[in-house]
Amino acid sequence: MRCELHFGVIGAGFMGKAHALAIHSVGPVFGLDTRPVADMIATSSDASAERAAKRLGFARHTGDWRQLVSDPAIDVVTVCAPLPHREMVLEAIAHGKHVLCEKPLATNTAEAVEMQAAAEQAGVVCMVGLNYPKTPASQFARQLIAEGALGEIVSFRCVHVEDFLADPDLPIDWRMRRAEAGAAGALGDLGSHCIGMSQWLLGPIREVMAETRIVHAHRPDPDSGRRVAVENDDQAELLVRFENGVSGSLYVSRVGTGHKMGLSYEVIGTEGTIVFDQERLSEIQFYSRRDDARTQGFRRVPMGPAHPDYGDFCPAPGHGTGYNDTVTVEIRDLIAAITGERTALWPCFADAVQVHRVIDAALASVEAGRWAGVG
Amino acid sequence: MRCELHFGVIGAGFMGKAHALAIHSVGPVFGLDTRPVADMIATSSDASAERAAKRLGFARHTGDWRQLVSDPAIDVVTVCAPLPHREMVLEAIAHGKHVLCEKPLATNTAEAVEMQAAAEQAGVVCMVGLNYPKTPASQFARQLIAEGALGEIVSFRCVHVEDFLADPDLPIDWRMRRAEAGAAGALGDLGSHCIGMSQWLLGPIREVMAETRIVHAHRPDPDSGRRVAVENDDQAELLVRFENGVSGSLYVSRVGTGHKMGLSYEVIGTEGTIVFDQERLSEIQFYSRRDDARTQGFRRVPMGPAHPDYGDFCPAPGHGTGYNDTVTVEIRDLIAAITGERTALWPCFADAVQVHRVIDAALASVEAGRWAGVG
Amino acid sequence: MRCELHFGVIGAGFMGKAHALAIHSVGPVFGLDTRPVADMIATSSDASAERAAKRLGFARHTGDWRQLVSDPAIDVVTVCAPLPHREMVLEAIAHGKHVLCEKPLATNTAEAVEMQAAAEQAGVVCMVGLNYPKTPASQFARQLIAEGALGEIVSFRCVHVEDFLADPDLPIDWRMRRAEAGAAGALGDLGSHCIGMSQWLLGPIREVMAETRIVHAHRPDPDSGRRVAVENDDQAELLVRFENGVSGSLYVSRVGTGHKMGLSYEVIGTEGTIVFDQERLSEIQFYSRRDDARTQGFRRVPMGPAHPDYGDFCPAPGHGTGYNDTVTVEIRDLIAAITGERTALWPCFADAVQVHRVIDAALASVEAGRWAGVG
Amino acid sequence: MRCELHFGVIGAGFMGKAHALAIHSVGPVFGLDTRPVADMIATSSDASAERAAKRLGFARHTGDWRQLVSDPAIDVVTVCAPLPHREMVLEAIAHGKHVLCEKPLATNTAEAVEMQAAAEQAGVVCMVGLNYPKTPASQFARQLIAEGALGEIVSFRCVHVEDFLADPDLPIDWRMRRAEAGAAGALGDLGSHCIGMSQWLLGPIREVMAETRIVHAHRPDPDSGRRVAVENDDQAELLVRFENGVSGSLYVSRVGTGHKMGLSYEVIGTEGTIVFDQERLSEIQFYSRRDDARTQGFRRVPMGPAHPDYGDFCPAPGHGTGYNDTVTVEIRDLIAAITGERTALWPCFADAVQVHRVIDAALASVEAGRWAGVG
Repeated sequence: MRCELHFGVIGAGFMGKAHALAIHSVGPVFGLDTRPVADMIATSSDASAERAAKRLGFARHTGDWRQLVSDPAIDVVTVCAPLPHREMVLEAIAHGKHVLCEKPLATNTAEAVEMQAAAEQAGVVCMVGLNYPKTPASQFARQLIAEGALGEIVSFRCVHVEDFLADPDLPIDWRMRRAEAGAAGALGDLGSHCIGMSQWLLGPIREVMAETRIVHAHRPDPDSGRRVAVENDDQAELLVRFENGVSGSLYVSRVGTGHKMGLSYEVIGTEGTIVFDQERLSEIQFYSRRDDARTQGFRRVPMGPAHPDYGDFCPAPGHGTGYNDTVTVEIRDLIAAITGERTALWPCFADAVQVHRVIDAALASVEAGRWAGVG
Repeated sequence: MRCELHFGVIGAGFMGKAHALAIHSVGPVFGLDTRPVADMIATSSDASAERAAKRLGFARHTGDWRQLVSDPAIDVVTVCAPLPHREMVLEAIAHGKHVLCEKPLATNTAEAVEMQAAAEQAGVVCMVGLNYPKTPASQFARQLIAEGALGEIVSFRCVHVEDFLADPDLPIDWRMRRAEAGAAGALGDLGSHCIGMSQWLLGPIREVMAETRIVHAHRPDPDSGRRVAVENDDQAELLVRFENGVSGSLYVSRVGTGHKMGLSYEVIGTEGTIVFDQERLSEIQFYSRRDDARTQGFRRVPMGPAHPDYGDFCPAPGHGTGYNDTVTVEIRDLIAAITGERTALWPCFADAVQVHRVIDAALASVEAGRWAGVG
Repeated sequence: MRCELHFGVIGAGFMGKAHALAIHSVGPVFGLDTRPVADMIATSSDASAERAAKRLGFARHTGDWRQLVSDPAIDVVTVCAPLPHREMVLEAIAHGKHVLCEKPLATNTAEAVEMQAAAEQAGVVCMVGLNYPKTPASQFARQLIAEGALGEIVSFRCVHVEDFLADPDLPIDWRMRRAEAGAAGALGDLGSHCIGMSQWLLGPIREVMAETRIVHAHRPDPDSGRRVAVENDDQAELLVRFENGVSGSLYVSRVGTGHKMGLSYEVIGTEGTIVFDQERLSEIQFYSRRDDARTQGFRRVPMGPAHPDYGDFCPAPGHGTGYNDTVTVEIRDLIAAITGERTALWPCFADAVQVHRVIDAALASVEAGRWAGVG
Repeated sequence: MRCELHFGVIGAGFMGKAHALAIHSVGPVFGLDTRPVADMIATSSDASAERAAKRLGFARHTGDWRQLVSDPAIDVVTVCAPLPHREMVLEAIAHGKHVLCEKPLATNTAEAVEMQAAAEQAGVVCMVGLNYPKTPASQFARQLIAEGALGEIVSFRCVHVEDFLADPDLPIDWRMRRAEAGAAGALGDLGSHCIGMSQWLLGPIREVMAETRIVHAHRPDPDSGRRVAVENDDQAELLVRFENGVSGSLYVSRVGTGHKMGLSYEVIGTEGTIVFDQERLSEIQFYSRRDDARTQGFRRVPMGPAHPDYGDFCPAPGHGTGYNDTVTVEIRDLIAAITGERTALWPCFADAVQVHRVIDAALASVEAGRWAGVG
């Protein structure tokens, strides 16, 4: 491998821009030996791609993503287009590219499995864009769990609530149609983050029991203005059993009034407890039963250089990292897997498949009204 | 009815003292026409009862609760002894006494139904001691829900976590034995509060899906020191469906490290959301989607005279009420039901029966691995 | 002394009621040997006194406070009338009564000194009603300081902000007129609490440097409706130097929008820091530099039986005490001083004199534009 | 001016790296027409400069800052070296460069004035690195103040507490020596931020009254290990009067146990109040007296696209920006001033001079024990 790693990014929206920023930042932040290059960006037209390239600092651009994935100079393709991702990912892999695909990876599990198999066969590094576990705080939470600071984990609750669809008059879009987004709505969209975070912290989920609901059953068609049916869930509530014996619950909602980035969790162990809230991403609450009885309490621990990856962003504690910094950590992890510096990559496509299987199990459980095993 | 209301209290522990304090305070706090009198206290021996009477300000005392419930001067009996309560309650009712019985009312639903039937037949006022909804904050939360400030309620989560049994070396006691506490452990003890609060806020629960776990399976016998089996759950997780169509989840634990009085809930509606935490009992968090877009956020609303019952304790806002004040409100509600000033009493024995039925359904659901209807 | 202690309360408003509640509760709460008796209440007319006696549970009543302070059966007089208090206090002392006088004790220091001298000469116990330090939390804060948990104290900030006069259209009352309230407005009213708390935690203040401001210079006369001049400060800001070498600042405001019971402080030491907020009176934030580097953070410590006086109100942690409970602790302290169980009483009239001297020094400093020593 | 803007950065430590990251990010984040180029970095030796250039993505490097400031290709020089900055800044200006100099700008006011005069004469854009006001939250706070959402401002408190020198055994460094850091210690270092933030929000400070203290008077010499004297303050407390009539207080400490990035402020107005804490940099607390009485409370407002500059980092609310993002905004402001897109630049050297004058006044006030006017 050369000392440079050329990135091609498909999409210039929310995540396309976030990837661009991370590609520019990751080298300086972490002092990488490998130099990531923002080489090419693809959008839906030449004109918009040209504007995006200029704005986001890419050397080249194209209105045709096929050109990007087949370009010999490109080493890594990141997929930031809306669903479906299947074709882009498979073609990129077919051309021997490493891939970072935004979540959810697929519209259904079969697609995800197909992509994972292709990645494995091709021997390329493939990652899915579940970036919330990349904060220093959630990395530190996982460390504390692994070190036994919480004792044996006995309970886990994770919530991902946002309110971007709380307004019932917002028009329908692809997220709410089964043909594009799949059978799972909030469960697929925010559930990916919630399930991903859960498995990253506590390992695989074995069984689920779920309840879903479409809160706003009809929304205006953006063209006609007529109310049409929303085809997948606005919220979902799950009981889960992890393979390690921990039980817990997950809750996701895209209509949960008041929460903007409401990904939060609580991990309760026999010796301590951690509480985290993504809206305050630079701190955890930590309680230890080992503290002196009179001064026991949840400690608000602001992140600092003593915590994972923080020091690369800032040498002084409490200054705070932001959302885009988590994407920078994600790209660093991807690069480290490509260069072989790190062998374990999370979340690879296998992890995404596991997320999809939990979603499938949840949908099956809703149908059956009972526990469903994760296939 | 006379202008005085004579109280007899059975038990002089945690709740016996709390009732005593409330009986002394309730008249002055609320300016009642009826004068509550702390007349008699019963404990397990004459000597301890005498001490309790002196300490807690009762005129008379007895080592035999039967004497108390049959005393003609007593109008109201409050039962603060450990489970089982059945015999005390039934005898009190048989003597025509009004009853306030601490939670959980019974060891099982059949007992609770028996007590409710007896109360109804006798035409006496019977209340169960679920006092947490009596804070100004939770009363106000219910008001906001009723007024439509949250729009249509779409999701509800309630948690009651304490850590008084987090230490695995604490000896076994009656709470952990089926013969005394029943088949439900934390589910019965803390679940009563959690289910009670839920139903008080949102109405009856129709169906549940539950998961329980004994975290510390063996504990020392206080006499022999040998480890013996804990016979009921340390924690329980429930999905619930309310009759009004709301779905949600409940979580209870008596081993949940870090939480001392961790009764909290979140009510999400289409127009707003309320978050409450009993450890900060004098405030609610309220979010309204109707606020100006730039300054939307959860408002920390400290209780004051604008909120239910607060002004009777203190004319100035933000000064805070405490745990014992919630018992004072409870006793006020009881008195108002007895004097006929208020016709609706919550929670009466019928409400306690409903709580027991939800617990039964939860246990049935655990057995069956599927949703169970509330009988 | 008899086993009973007969209380006479002058005033039936905010604090009169609070004293009544405390007199009823203090015996049962603390299991006192001495039985406090709510004997007589005085208000401005026989009729209102009769109503108050009935409502608040006093045996006797009077429309003339002189009758109360001279009644031979009365042991303790509590003064809950608006300023001035001088005559009531001096007459009570002259009749050999113990006195609890609400804050501020006096309209000026000379008056306070006069009362203190009278109390000393008469050998009666005299206390001033600065009750906020009586929370378990602030008592615990003081304990931690005394034990050295914070190391050497190096900085202190205390604030008492309320917003009860934030509305500029509220009519003028006695608090804003020099003839009645004295030269200090918020500085005298809320400053009493702020200075009292400071001295209770850290000892005497030696020097102050102050700045005051009348924010709403004119308010409607309640009779004529015409705007008349507010005669004393709406807010004050002080730098202070304690005798022990600590420096800090105080801030008080009666127009500080948003704060209902905004008495808060931060004590910074070389080894740790405490943060307290009266609106969350049942917890402190505590930081220790001795904690492990990775998990250092402010601990939210909820009060429980491990903390001063909490267990007498409730045996379970985290349940919370309220405002009226702080008055109960205050009355317990008063009784303990009267019965001789405790020799140290805080705040006695000497402490109130010291508070007045700090206020005087602050006013002198405003005049001079420089540090003023506390006389 | 070309479409490119070539940056030369002096220093590769904390702030040098932060500037590098911002130079790389600012174009893509804001979609700038001007392309910032990370052209040259200077450190104290060729070897370290070479490493820094590689790591931080600079095209060129030098071990001699004079080479950098005189290089004809460089448009903008940023000074990230420790104090003194004077020579670097003056030489850069002399070569016609625009300058961004880290705070504090100078060791004393005379130096700052000299630099400002040079900048003015040369007609170059000169900025000082007070970047904390660049958060969306503090920008929004200022907007709310300007719009009158708080009514008339009546009180202001600002604190900047960190604990990086809380350990008394940390060795002495340049910050604690007058020859290098000047007569003001924490007052100069953290005071720059605190005073800067204050003036940015409320305008110029007119008078101050100050108190300073050296908490740890002696620290080990890093070479000899012997304790030597700390020469400037560890903490300072100020009363301030703004030109607009607002009064308030500032507090700074470098030994304030428990605070990592403890820059916080409270702005109280007649109609509302804002509270901000840099450790939770992506939210403000806002209270409005105009809210409905029953639901009044401090709103926690998470930043989102509705707030200044947030949307350029992320289109979804609540995701959070981090410390480095504030530097990116700072560089954007600098570029906008250079290109002429914006005429007002804050903080320019004149603002830094004003900060130094306040510090001077504070030191004079300490000497005199009375108010000192800001020169």
